[in-house]
Amino acid sequence: MKLIRYGQAGKEKTGVIINDKRYDTSAFGEDYNEAFFENDGLNRLATFLKENEGNLPEVSASERLGSPVARPSKIVCIGLNYAKHAKETNAPIPAEPILFFKSTTALVGPNDDIIIPKNSVKTDWEVELAFVIGKKASYVEEADAMDYIAGYCLHNDVSEREFQLERGGTWDKGKGCDTFAPIGPWLATKDEVADVNNLRLWLKVNDKIFQDGNTDDLIFSIPKLVSYLSHFMTLLPGDIISTGTPHGVGLGFNPPVYLKPGDVVELGIDGLGTSKQQVKAYQG
Amino acid sequence: MKLIRYGQAGKEKTGVIINDKRYDTSAFGEDYNEAFFENDGLNRLATFLKENEGNLPEVSASERLGSPVARPSKIVCIGLNYAKHAKETNAPIPAEPILFFKSTTALVGPNDDIIIPKNSVKTDWEVELAFVIGKKASYVEEADAMDYIAGYCLHNDVSEREFQLERGGTWDKGKGCDTFAPIGPWLATKDEVADVNNLRLWLKVNDKIFQDGNTDDLIFSIPKLVSYLSHFMTLLPGDIISTGTPHGVGLGFNPPVYLKPGDVVELGIDGLGTSKQQVKAYQG
Repeated sequence: MKLIRYGQAGKEKTGVIINDKRYDTSAFGEDYNEAFFENDGLNRLATFLKENEGNLPEVSASERLGSPVARPSKIVCIGLNYAKHAKETNAPIPAEPILFFKSTTALVGPNDDIIIPKNSVKTDWEVELAFVIGKKASYVEEADAMDYIAGYCLHNDVSEREFQLERGGTWDKGKGCDTFAPIGPWLATKDEVADVNNLRLWLKVNDKIFQDGNTDDLIFSIPKLVSYLSHFMTLLPGDIISTGTPHGVGLGFNPPVYLKPGDVVELGIDGLGTSKQQVKAYQG
Repeated sequence: MKLIRYGQAGKEKTGVIINDKRYDTSAFGEDYNEAFFENDGLNRLATFLKENEGNLPEVSASERLGSPVARPSKIVCIGLNYAKHAKETNAPIPAEPILFFKSTTALVGPNDDIIIPKNSVKTDWEVELAFVIGKKASYVEEADAMDYIAGYCLHNDVSEREFQLERGGTWDKGKGCDTFAPIGPWLATKDEVADVNNLRLWLKVNDKIFQDGNTDDLIFSIPKLVSYLSHFMTLLPGDIISTGTPHGVGLGFNPPVYLKPGDVVELGIDGLGTSKQQVKAYQG
């Protein structure tokens, strides 16, 4: 299945994509949130879709998309998980996964605007493969890890490099600004993705390609990440984990290239669709 | 007002403390969560208490206490915010606040057990003054910051020093393990605290005093923290912000002193009550 949420920000309705068309699933009666994933929502939704085949209201392609999952308990990200990206940021290849949090208030729809924060001069992009947790995960073994994943989605891990790297302390300062987590267009359930370890991911700014990588270059695999993270904290159903970005971020150029108002960012991953954000200045 | 939540973990009921006695406020019909704080819950609760004076069911002192606020969208903590604590950890005095996140799954009641994580040998304590956000805060000026605070509570920012400092990357790994955020016993609304900048805070392990500080030693004040954080992310009603710990943590001793199964941790802050945790090994 391909799950979507659409409509007004903060009041999204649920839907699915079937044969490239969008359908409303409001009649299912549940948002795609922690309780949904926790209570076997994906299987119940599949049954609902079978029972209502041909009877679901179509949703206009012009409707705004929200994040395909509701605001989760946490968004955990992995840093420097592609070797060439570590190199471009002058960082060593990590011996074990680097983790950080994005404030969940950063979550927006896939085609919503990216707002450059007040006082920011180094807002950057990062195309990433994210996965969504399907059941409560604590001290999970790597061999069992795939059982804890609900599916995958596209994520632009927008990052403010001065806030992240030059303002003292952890990276969290540069990762959680409002609009810094455009997610979607859809959540693809595991069965929709033939080989998650061989997906092309790319990102363009103003039609120029900056990132073009493949998940076969991930240093730490998805099962490894689930297991590793679950030894430091409990992952809850609906939590979003983002697996890191390949090389080609703005910070890596000489001189660096950062986003400015009027820029257009487009990104995509095989099988997970594309997203497109207009860059705007903060108006306060 | 002094707000409490009590009863079975995950199914807490709401209450208040009046003249050292606990009363149930289930009839008010709302948990102390984001929606409660967002929708002027504190003022409405005050009205409810006036209207129901003398008619609220008393709650037994033997009932378990949960966190006085429901699981928030985030728990943000400030590092090294007392000069002598920075010194004992061999860190420089920060030029601006250091921030990190605790996974909200770490949240427990004030007297729940602290579980030493699997593979942990350096579980440590940190008595802290936490405050709770009362309304949505984005780009708040320091002069207005106090308007965004609902109240204060006691927090033990339990920390695994190896996970935090020796496992690569950010501090977040050592801060969010299950049970690492005992909060409470109560949330004191602002009017209950005469001078938040002059509160003694202390912590004992097995009846021996290890931390004994005062909030008048905070490097970055509470209004400064609200303003500062709100420039990097939006703070939501019900979010918990913890302001840092004074000196006397286990890491600071030579040799360091860490928690072991059977230990008892007690902590307190003037006007915010005391809490007490038994330390246990993880049983997996």
